[in-house]
Amino acid sequence: MISFCSLTPEILEELYGRGARQCPSPNDQVSLVFSQAKPFDLVELEQLLASVGWSRRPVRRVRRALENSLLKVGLWRHDPKFPRLVGFARCTGDGVLEATVWDVAVHPLYQGTGLGKQLMNYILEELSKMGIEEVTLFADPGVVDFYLRQGWLLEPSGNRCAFWYSTQ
Amino acid sequence: MISFCSLTPEILEELYGRGARQCPSPNDQVSLVFSQAKPFDLVELEQLLASVGWSRRPVRRVRRALENSLLKVGLWRHDPKFPRLVGFARCTGDGVLEATVWDVAVHPLYQGTGLGKQLMNYILEELSKMGIEEVTLFADPGVVDFYLRQGWLLEPSGNRCAFWYSTQ
Repeated sequence: MISFCSLTPEILEELYGRGARQCPSPNDQVSLVFSQAKPFDLVELEQLLASVGWSRRPVRRVRRALENSLLKVGLWRHDPKFPRLVGFARCTGDGVLEATVWDVAVHPLYQGTGLGKQLMNYILEELSKMGIEEVTLFADPGVVDFYLRQGWLLEPSGNRCAFWYSTQ
Repeated sequence: MISFCSLTPEILEELYGRGARQCPSPNDQVSLVFSQAKPFDLVELEQLLASVGWSRRPVRRVRRALENSLLKVGLWRHDPKFPRLVGFARCTGDGVLEATVWDVAVHPLYQGTGLGKQLMNYILEELSKMGIEEVTLFADPGVVDFYLRQGWLLEPSGNRCAFWYSTQ
């Protein structure tokens, strides 16, 4: 990956904000960048989430949910003028003991190349840096194997049982 | 419950902060109060959590986790001088779309009288007021029936699957 398409620290910070870092790319022609600082265009974010089959949510509510999230990660396809959002995930939590991962999405054009795993690894590293001990998530049945392969434990495992409640 | 031991709004606010409200009590001699505003003594909180069998956690980390929680509810046994913390729960979340309930505890001396259910109802009402659509929690096996009886859905239910990951 450290090849002709690696980006300088200056370009990374200028375009993607502090702490941005390159993501190993499956394609030498494509540079990918993780960023927690680059603001999201909420329409672009909704398009990404819709591309993986999620229902649209009111932009005003999504904005507040993002503001209140502990961690928001964008995976960007680098372009000096028009970086494209090709992956996303966010976490909520208390910032200390536990966190829950939501809205993990990789655009269908970029799936199947290990980027989902890179994205999850990035998130777990960042949560680990905060000292968070336990991470949870709720997954659709179609991606259960994806998480099992990465060492996640499916609940109820005998130790803890997961519940779900809709207030609507 | 609206009997000789009901508390005036003035006493409720003075002792337990804004928005405090009485919890139906199983015993006329005991007044119980839900409060989100009354500060916790972290030693008393740890004693409560230890009384239901949870391991102790560093106070400094618990303080930060509380600060970062979306909702913290104390259930107090009223006393004009020394209110006692007999129940507790907290939620994390984005304040908009979803919340997760953690650390639900009712002191063993007060269990078996419906207070756990009252506490959960209180929390779900407060989350509903915020407009939160989905609430999740992780439960120990011993209290699975408790949540099932209250309308929670055990995962994986076919719709969503819960995962768990320890970073330690």
